[in-house]
Amino acid sequence: MRKEVAVIGAGMIHFGELFDKSVDNMIEEAYINCLNSVDKGIEPKEIEAAWLGSAYERSGASLAVPTGLFRIPISRNENGCATGSDAFRNACYAVKAGIYKVVLVCGVEKMRDTAGGLIAKAAAKSGIEMWRYRARTMPAFFGLRGTRHFHEFGSNREHLAMISVKNHHNGSLYPYAHYKFETTVDQVLNAPIVSWPLGLYDCCPITDGACCVLIAHADVAKKYTDTPVWWQGAGCGVDSWMRGLDENLIGFPATAIAAREAYKMAGITPKDIQVAEVHDCFTVTEMLDYEDLGFCKKGEGHKMIEEGVVNLDGSLPVNPSGGLIAKGHPIGASGVAQIAEIYEQLRGTAGKVQVPDVEIGLQHNIGLGRGATGSASVVNILRR
Amino acid sequence: MRKEVAVIGAGMIHFGELFDKSVDNMIEEAYINCLNSVDKGIEPKEIEAAWLGSAYERSGASLAVPTGLFRIPISRNENGCATGSDAFRNACYAVKAGIYKVVLVCGVEKMRDTAGGLIAKAAAKSGIEMWRYRARTMPAFFGLRGTRHFHEFGSNREHLAMISVKNHHNGSLYPYAHYKFETTVDQVLNAPIVSWPLGLYDCCPITDGACCVLIAHADVAKKYTDTPVWWQGAGCGVDSWMRGLDENLIGFPATAIAAREAYKMAGITPKDIQVAEVHDCFTVTEMLDYEDLGFCKKGEGHKMIEEGVVNLDGSLPVNPSGGLIAKGHPIGASGVAQIAEIYEQLRGTAGKVQVPDVEIGLQHNIGLGRGATGSASVVNILRR
Repeated sequence: MRKEVAVIGAGMIHFGELFDKSVDNMIEEAYINCLNSVDKGIEPKEIEAAWLGSAYERSGASLAVPTGLFRIPISRNENGCATGSDAFRNACYAVKAGIYKVVLVCGVEKMRDTAGGLIAKAAAKSGIEMWRYRARTMPAFFGLRGTRHFHEFGSNREHLAMISVKNHHNGSLYPYAHYKFETTVDQVLNAPIVSWPLGLYDCCPITDGACCVLIAHADVAKKYTDTPVWWQGAGCGVDSWMRGLDENLIGFPATAIAAREAYKMAGITPKDIQVAEVHDCFTVTEMLDYEDLGFCKKGEGHKMIEEGVVNLDGSLPVNPSGGLIAKGHPIGASGVAQIAEIYEQLRGTAGKVQVPDVEIGLQHNIGLGRGATGSASVVNILRR
Repeated sequence: MRKEVAVIGAGMIHFGELFDKSVDNMIEEAYINCLNSVDKGIEPKEIEAAWLGSAYERSGASLAVPTGLFRIPISRNENGCATGSDAFRNACYAVKAGIYKVVLVCGVEKMRDTAGGLIAKAAAKSGIEMWRYRARTMPAFFGLRGTRHFHEFGSNREHLAMISVKNHHNGSLYPYAHYKFETTVDQVLNAPIVSWPLGLYDCCPITDGACCVLIAHADVAKKYTDTPVWWQGAGCGVDSWMRGLDENLIGFPATAIAAREAYKMAGITPKDIQVAEVHDCFTVTEMLDYEDLGFCKKGEGHKMIEEGVVNLDGSLPVNPSGGLIAKGHPIGASGVAQIAEIYEQLRGTAGKVQVPDVEIGLQHNIGLGRGATGSASVVNILRR
């Protein structure tokens, strides 16, 4: 794809259990950080439209109030855990269509001010008996795919543990991560089991967070920075989660569909990706992502971590920010924060987790929706 | 705007209290009606992407399950009561950007399967004490603007009643309307007061409904119909609802902002509009819409109904379908159904409510968001 749509700024807040901050506080801080990140400066009045990605905050007005961005159009997107990525995708379409020249995308989620966090919120919305009394929890849904992969391909819990160790190591170096401690394979293996084969350190935490990015059309991007990062394509896929498309439970059809669309639009193949932020709500998700995104063949995901390919010093570093496992997973913010991290990586401003000299990066989210009977996945590709 | 994005089909279901239908049933029926409405036929496999507008159904997967549209990208938009219009707006941007050639937009809402309908649902999400115990209900929010208009400009409850009579008359002729009875000014004036100055017949009902429209790029539109209807522009505005922009409570700044953007994109003025479906959650909303959309000057909205301009046989018929007042207001479906109605009007297939020989039509939604501290408005303009 031609260089038409650029990311020109990104700002996030320190993810964590932010009991002392409201949603408005969180958005305001990310927004100000984002404005301040623009190399040549930007005024709020230059922002022509905005997209809000949030699973729980309702309507575009939720972004207008804390930012003062009244008068401009603001849409809200929600697409399960792929919410933030899909808000970014929709915003890019509007800029590519020539409708707006400068657009803000904000992802936000307050997960920890409701007793029980995500599960309680999901329960309130989807019928509490389903979640609590039938044990149909997220770790159970995702864990099933691990045992099947183990059975078919000889992977095991140690592979998952190595992903946890990698992501916690990266997170310990990442300034905005929720968790900043290292783990060892032994610690991960010996931690309490949440839902087999997933133990405590195989799971992402319940995290509050916000992140904003600014997008500009090529016509005006150079006004804001000499080193924009170009959006090259997006894809989205929906599958039926254990029905229909989902023949074998080894992987996520929605991710493979989304990736295919994004690669095609960008005119590249998986081999061109040099750095990636992928959805690791659980370690098993990341292992399956390697396969679904085409980084390796189906059934070889565990070799990517075994051989160190996806480590910070490997040939294809995955989740240099620590991923959802260490950075945290504030639903609407997660995808936007992945975009922000790839933006920093491609500009060479990613600090202690910088991957040397990367030109093309990928961002990926997958989430359940509709009471966990379907899933949606979104992939975006960026280029220096 | 050039003729780039076309509506090529539209299908809705009979709005009402559909206790015998699930959300899936409702979507499936609207989807099949929409497929069958395409003049030269269409196969589901030709649909490349979809947008779901729903205030309460979560994630794109909610549209995939009842339609079988797995594999393709599906986004969900929510923007208060402007949800359906904003889903359509986002879909049009993606088609205009050249990303997809054929796109489905579905709006749906199940309002009546929860005790108390909308208010109970809103209460569950926004904190019940606010809605129930402080009387901060929708009729109270909207009614305030009526009393101020009465005070400033000499309008009165009879004007509002005339809007109710008009919309109920139109609805009695419209095949898919929830309410199909006529009213008289006396009946409306003597009905129980809900929140002054709004009586029972000044308020839209709590309604279940679904509607789908199909959009195609100009490159392929003629494959599906010889008489497409062209999307000419969209606008969206957000305001702070009784703060900031909202200086005098006479009207809705968000609507004026949205209309200005849409007219500019379409390259037309309000004088060019020949038929309109506007947001009449309450009669007072419609009166203020006339002004905010530029159909008349500020303070003259009541004259539009007094002089019969907006009647079915007037020079600018408004809400020929009966509007939300008679057709009903299933939130996510409302805006998409307005698009469907304007599509029928411009094609000359609107049956008993057909306005003769109309070329340009407008669709408008406004809704509260963020616990009713902000509002969002969306306007779309279509042309034969």
